[in-house]
Amino acid sequence: MDRVLRIGLLGCGTVGGGVVTLLSGEVDDITARTGARLEVVRIAVRDLDKASARGLPVSRDVFTTDPSAVVEDPDVDVVVEVMGGLDPAGGLIRRALELGKPVVTANKELVADAGPELYEAARAAGVDFAYEAAVAGAIPIIRPLKESLAGDRVTRVVGILNGTTNYILTKMSEEGADYAEVLADAQRLGYAEADPTADVGGHDAAAKCAILASLAFDTVVHASDVFREGIAAITATDLRVADRLGYVVKLVGIASEVDDRVGARVHPVFLPKEHPLASVRDAFNAVYVEAEAAGQLMFYGRGAGAMPTASAVVGDVIDVARNLLQTARGAAESVHRAKAIRPIEDLQTQYYVLLAVDDQAGVLADVARTFGDHGVSIAQVWQEGAGDSAQLVLITHRAREGDLQQTVGALAAMTNVRSVASVLRVESEVFAS
Amino acid sequence: MDRVLRIGLLGCGTVGGGVVTLLSGEVDDITARTGARLEVVRIAVRDLDKASARGLPVSRDVFTTDPSAVVEDPDVDVVVEVMGGLDPAGGLIRRALELGKPVVTANKELVADAGPELYEAARAAGVDFAYEAAVAGAIPIIRPLKESLAGDRVTRVVGILNGTTNYILTKMSEEGADYAEVLADAQRLGYAEADPTADVGGHDAAAKCAILASLAFDTVVHASDVFREGIAAITATDLRVADRLGYVVKLVGIASEVDDRVGARVHPVFLPKEHPLASVRDAFNAVYVEAEAAGQLMFYGRGAGAMPTASAVVGDVIDVARNLLQTARGAAESVHRAKAIRPIEDLQTQYYVLLAVDDQAGVLADVARTFGDHGVSIAQVWQEGAGDSAQLVLITHRAREGDLQQTVGALAAMTNVRSVASVLRVESEVFAS
Repeated sequence: MDRVLRIGLLGCGTVGGGVVTLLSGEVDDITARTGARLEVVRIAVRDLDKASARGLPVSRDVFTTDPSAVVEDPDVDVVVEVMGGLDPAGGLIRRALELGKPVVTANKELVADAGPELYEAARAAGVDFAYEAAVAGAIPIIRPLKESLAGDRVTRVVGILNGTTNYILTKMSEEGADYAEVLADAQRLGYAEADPTADVGGHDAAAKCAILASLAFDTVVHASDVFREGIAAITATDLRVADRLGYVVKLVGIASEVDDRVGARVHPVFLPKEHPLASVRDAFNAVYVEAEAAGQLMFYGRGAGAMPTASAVVGDVIDVARNLLQTARGAAESVHRAKAIRPIEDLQTQYYVLLAVDDQAGVLADVARTFGDHGVSIAQVWQEGAGDSAQLVLITHRAREGDLQQTVGALAAMTNVRSVASVLRVESEVFAS
Repeated sequence: MDRVLRIGLLGCGTVGGGVVTLLSGEVDDITARTGARLEVVRIAVRDLDKASARGLPVSRDVFTTDPSAVVEDPDVDVVVEVMGGLDPAGGLIRRALELGKPVVTANKELVADAGPELYEAARAAGVDFAYEAAVAGAIPIIRPLKESLAGDRVTRVVGILNGTTNYILTKMSEEGADYAEVLADAQRLGYAEADPTADVGGHDAAAKCAILASLAFDTVVHASDVFREGIAAITATDLRVADRLGYVVKLVGIASEVDDRVGARVHPVFLPKEHPLASVRDAFNAVYVEAEAAGQLMFYGRGAGAMPTASAVVGDVIDVARNLLQTARGAAESVHRAKAIRPIEDLQTQYYVLLAVDDQAGVLADVARTFGDHGVSIAQVWQEGAGDSAQLVLITHRAREGDLQQTVGALAAMTNVRSVASVLRVESEVFAS
């Protein structure tokens, strides 16, 4: 005499297929944990024939090409959205919440864009809106931020949030290869898309960073609030210099709160080799969290892939189903405080600067004077190469980003500086111990 | 017109003090998250004068020396146990659950000893029993196992579960120092107890390993079911050999399920340097989880300390308070299936063996024959030193522990083997990618 809760699925690509497989594979355990049998009763797909041909353990007649029919179906108790994109996913989720149906989604783009509005819709309807799978795939990070650290104060979140770029940087670092070469390899192997912009440009990581920043600091941070730089300009030289100085180069999303302002940024950084994030290789993701009482935490795992994402979705489905049966709600996002976004110009950090220079007496003095004129102090400097390939490598002390940017502008205008080849931020303050 | 939920605290040492501090420091956020103000109304302590003198933000009259009075007080809605030990903590918690009061505890010893009975008491009473702080301090690991991975199948858990031993092994490895020397330093610095047995003997880790094994495999594993070896016999030579072969030495708790039998063991291992756990240094803890769909996950952070533990306790308090207000229960432990415990003799792994031998022709052949006679195949062997300090270093292929133990017995009886200096398990199968 088990109760039955009926799931409606929006989208049935590889993640959706994984969700169906997991829900039908662990029936007894899931029933024990939720207090109800979970049945997938409706699935919206683009192509009925293709969906039926996949041999998923559901009957043919659950498929429909009309996603609204899934949401509106009075037989559907819980809606799972794995179709992706802003539209029509956003409207469908809003409607499901309005109908009092809890929603589970893996849609980072949508949560980054409309999260606060959807949290509020869920609150108004008294049901759950869960999105563990939207950030860092299988890694439980939303739940720890919303629940485990609910009584603590998070001060900083640093995440390796994109598997493709971490794969590319790992290969570049271990093989001494250049960006274009590794990207081409990654595309051939299926680790990078034909159009890799969303990954290598940092857009994907920025959406996730916005979600994490909002949760960590109880405020609203949109993807467009996140300062963003990609990895396309990273060279083998940058990685070589980093290695020599005891750093690795990683594309990270960093969210922090300083004086009631929230900073959120995605860009490549020099990270000390001893930092727990430094050993995150290949396509793995990890999120490092600093909290006042808990101290340093890190969550590591597969940030993408059909089954890891499906695992996170099903964990959420079990959670919202248990709550629905008890007419309860799980942990909600905290009060959303209005906090200002800290502009990138106000960032205080160290910098690595690589300059192609004329190999002549006085260039170092000129360069040093330019830094000094803008209030940026140099911690380390040396020359590499000679003649046409002469380069100056500089590491600054902590400086204000705005001052550094002005320095770079002035350097670029100098007659004995041929080009500013690289500028990267150095996160030496984020140590493990 | 906020509702108020009243907390009764059993014990008020450094963790209890931290709980009081956190609950009174983040009042608005906590109220928003739970839907009620949380007030600490009763605290059981040993010494009233000492407790009052600590200047905690509570009035003097909340303190009592009678823990039963806290549990029985009709004004107490939620009981938080941070006194530790089996007795009277166990009886007090049982009574609180019987009275329909949810309980939060940080007591690993008790949960390892009586967990299943307490889960059942909580289930019968329809309230929560939460113990995130009992395993690995601030690291959220109970919640991920109970909730995030509820729809997945965990295949293995490997944890660095004790900070003291990880600190000692890190120092031994980085300074090339011997065990006794580093232990004495650690004791002087307060990183190790005057009587370090619970830590260095693996007892503390075994209790945590039992809790993790029970949760991961939906069964009952007691601390006494966990095979246990400590680190007192580890030498600088072992660490040097490990380093040369690309390993680090870590004390880990490993729980795995093979053919419906659960193996749970705590002992030092050779772990590949590329493994995510290998870079966990000093007093940090980490738990590595392999699940069928999610793949490899790792959770890292401070496994002990007053404020990290208090942070985990308060996370749980907020959770059970929210559920109590909704007359709901959070995720419960899954059905407890009766599964046999796999004896250590049936373990299949690789081994490192260090032998002090007579430096004479034929000893290698004799040793190799002894391994072969017991069905243990040698992967690598070399001699170190000469004369009186001649040693053979051997790494085996995967072998059955029972066969290896018989081999070791036979080696110890050989006339040209002076002693079996070290035997350690090599976990080369647990790779990150």
